[in-house]
Amino acid sequence: MHAGWAAVSVLARKFRRIVGWDGVLSTPSDLAVYECDGYTLEKHRPDLVVFPRSTAEVVEIVRLCGQYRVPILARGAGTSLAGGCTPLGGGVLVAMTRMNHILQIDPRNRMAVVEPGVLNVQLARALEGTGLHFAPDPSSQTASTLGGNVATNAGGPHTLKYGVTGNHVLGLEVVLADGSCLQLGPALDPPGYDLLGLLVGSEGTLAILTKLWLRLTPNPQDYRTLRAVFADVEDACNAISDIIGQGIIPAAMELMDQGILAAVEEAYHFGFPLDAEAVVIIEVDGLSAGLDEQLARIVEVCRRWNARQILHASSAEERTQLWKCRKMAVGAVGRLSPSYCIQDGVVPRTQLPRIVRRIAEISRQHHIRIVNVAHAGDGNIHPILLFDQDNPEEVRRALAASYELLAACLECGGSITAEHGVGVEKLPLMPRQFAPADLEAMRRVREAFDPEGLLAPGKLLPAKPPPDQLADATPPANPPAASLTGQQSFSLYHRGGLP
Amino acid sequence: MHAGWAAVSVLARKFRRIVGWDGVLSTPSDLAVYECDGYTLEKHRPDLVVFPRSTAEVVEIVRLCGQYRVPILARGAGTSLAGGCTPLGGGVLVAMTRMNHILQIDPRNRMAVVEPGVLNVQLARALEGTGLHFAPDPSSQTASTLGGNVATNAGGPHTLKYGVTGNHVLGLEVVLADGSCLQLGPALDPPGYDLLGLLVGSEGTLAILTKLWLRLTPNPQDYRTLRAVFADVEDACNAISDIIGQGIIPAAMELMDQGILAAVEEAYHFGFPLDAEAVVIIEVDGLSAGLDEQLARIVEVCRRWNARQILHASSAEERTQLWKCRKMAVGAVGRLSPSYCIQDGVVPRTQLPRIVRRIAEISRQHHIRIVNVAHAGDGNIHPILLFDQDNPEEVRRALAASYELLAACLECGGSITAEHGVGVEKLPLMPRQFAPADLEAMRRVREAFDPEGLLAPGKLLPAKPPPDQLADATPPANPPAASLTGQQSFSLYHRGGLP
Repeated sequence: MHAGWAAVSVLARKFRRIVGWDGVLSTPSDLAVYECDGYTLEKHRPDLVVFPRSTAEVVEIVRLCGQYRVPILARGAGTSLAGGCTPLGGGVLVAMTRMNHILQIDPRNRMAVVEPGVLNVQLARALEGTGLHFAPDPSSQTASTLGGNVATNAGGPHTLKYGVTGNHVLGLEVVLADGSCLQLGPALDPPGYDLLGLLVGSEGTLAILTKLWLRLTPNPQDYRTLRAVFADVEDACNAISDIIGQGIIPAAMELMDQGILAAVEEAYHFGFPLDAEAVVIIEVDGLSAGLDEQLARIVEVCRRWNARQILHASSAEERTQLWKCRKMAVGAVGRLSPSYCIQDGVVPRTQLPRIVRRIAEISRQHHIRIVNVAHAGDGNIHPILLFDQDNPEEVRRALAASYELLAACLECGGSITAEHGVGVEKLPLMPRQFAPADLEAMRRVREAFDPEGLLAPGKLLPAKPPPDQLADATPPANPPAASLTGQQSFSLYHRGGLP
Repeated sequence: MHAGWAAVSVLARKFRRIVGWDGVLSTPSDLAVYECDGYTLEKHRPDLVVFPRSTAEVVEIVRLCGQYRVPILARGAGTSLAGGCTPLGGGVLVAMTRMNHILQIDPRNRMAVVEPGVLNVQLARALEGTGLHFAPDPSSQTASTLGGNVATNAGGPHTLKYGVTGNHVLGLEVVLADGSCLQLGPALDPPGYDLLGLLVGSEGTLAILTKLWLRLTPNPQDYRTLRAVFADVEDACNAISDIIGQGIIPAAMELMDQGILAAVEEAYHFGFPLDAEAVVIIEVDGLSAGLDEQLARIVEVCRRWNARQILHASSAEERTQLWKCRKMAVGAVGRLSPSYCIQDGVVPRTQLPRIVRRIAEISRQHHIRIVNVAHAGDGNIHPILLFDQDNPEEVRRALAASYELLAACLECGGSITAEHGVGVEKLPLMPRQFAPADLEAMRRVREAFDPEGLLAPGKLLPAKPPPDQLADATPPANPPAASLTGQQSFSLYHRGGLP
């Protein structure tokens, strides 16, 4: 599928006719910037990067790629932590960053219409003063694009109450692999198949998003935010599970463990107790009238699970301060280690204590330090593995630990990703999450949209195993670490992609 | 595709070996019962009706049908109002009524596992005393099956706050056309394509549902229910729109117009004012603490829109009484007319006054009496057209009026169905709701699941127009009435299906 050099230069010339002279990158030094995203363990250089400014330009680009049978991958801000923006098959990377206009804000119908390259935070700022907000707030909010949020069905701290990105997408305009353009929604309750839902989270494998109709949510009348400190992390997990068990749905319940607290404290001096195993930030929102009652019940549950300190935010400033420590947590990790990998898994809430124990075991077993943040209210864990990318042996152990920890999520009845997507990183785990028939059904859907296999080749779905391996599609429980990115022909090691 | 008589008797024998002697219907008098559903204007007799008791039996049935290339249609309780259970192509009707067991109620994980033939009300009763309920409550609740609710993505009065059925489906076990069995979910946030979402609302065209994992919702702590009487139906619509505009999401807002009020009053003597143009039932629920404040704001909005009487339910009995009049409304229509057709459309809430005016115009124009109930909070209207099925001229006018009023929903930015599904009835309107490229994408998805086209043939998606008609796929604005069911080869008139 790789376009030969002659074809590349012809394509570059044709693309420049579509998007203008400055809309195509083709020199090795320019392309090097686009060879990976937030997942730096696997790198593949695209043959060309193209920057369209309109749907019509995307259509022309896709048609040209079809004529030349060149792979196409759409890219937002490149904040994927799973290699979603790494162009495995080379080919053309369609960078959506110039399609970054907010087209309409319609408060009466509670809807925003945006181009896919608009940053999440850009929309948040544009909505200030309207009394409305876009509910999905991934931690990458200040950097990631709304198109990327939709393509990965991103979550965030407030997913617990407000749902994932997919719950806030009213319509999509998309360009299919054959260059046809669909508008799905924003009709109310359309009949027929839910193609809109199918496209959300499809990681660029079914279509390129060119316009988004997004649901806006009224700002809550009021908030109550508290921070509870627990000596024992399992107590903290049990408290979280019990709060939901009481029928309270907080807007967010975020857990940070001792390791991450130490990093945050060292970096920013928030005054966290350093001997506590866990801090939980809990927020309830809604009509003022009900909030104090909810808060009292939450405090009671935390006390029952031995919270040793409970602090309420009594002003907007204090609330901001409580959230700041959470939002800056990942950044602080940079102080602990030269490289780190933010994992993403889910377990049922009731399994939180079990997975926390397993993470500690895995850390000891592989000699990889792991610190934890978690959108704990919905069981979404983000263990952060610390290692040195220049030490191949440590990389190997970090990958093995990652694999094992995601397999543990599956054993707990969870999932290998909540919001980062499959990308490149989690491909080998797909046959553990899904039965062969499930994967086959997904492959057939993909072929229905993209029979030539030009969109994001090698991504999301593992290659079909040869017939004689179908009977034993489950990988061994404890595979060699290389297999984390070692399936298909895209192995870290085969391609010498290690830095 | 129609199975010859010899094949039918061979199939019947083979099916009896799978499901037992009493699990197959094959005589004309038995089959006559299954030739239509709640939409009685189009009838097609199946060749056989089979009653499986397990997924394994469904797999065997589907495989046999595949071998003989016989069409298959799954049927729940046959309450479809759009002909969803009418076996257009003849063939085998798979009746799910014996798969009617509640397999598990798991309060800790707020989940019920059920077979598709379980009635919605059967689950509601089984949950009494658990503090949990299944939120979707279609008006057919006492008769319709949960499998049917999922297949049509049913709504109901409480959709406004709690969402449609799809929002409450955690997992599905399904049998595909090739006899393979998929289990989709109930994993948390699985990666890959949202096949679960794709199957919800697919009206039996992609797979047969054999097991459902359903989300249970905590009962609200408290309710406030009120009835507001309006002299002017447009005032009522504006009040509904403004309540939502204030940021209040009631659990339900149901509108009944003068015509339906008269019928209810005549049948049950609830004491409704007969000179009022509209009555609206509004319910808020949640934590007790916030409810009175919400109620006060709702009352204020109703007063501003000239509500002439506002009645609060001050006890559980009074609440039940208020709801009873709404739930019995459709039944009361039987007193008004020998036949009726309950239509189903959606408009944006802000367009309610406009659609109400249009319905009145359409009623006058076609000399068809139309009375209205509506899940008005989410813009879901249910105009009920009254006619005499024995009068072909009246049937023709009723169909023409139906077509026009759904087209009017589209003109208002709405949709041709909210919850009844496309079935047979709304096929001709699909090319008005969707562009040719949208329908083509849906067709490709369908082919990916069912390449032989054996599942529910002729349903949901209109046949692909011949290439020379693609450019002009939109039907005329005011087509002859027969085209409401007149597309494809399944015309009411071509087949002499009129009673």
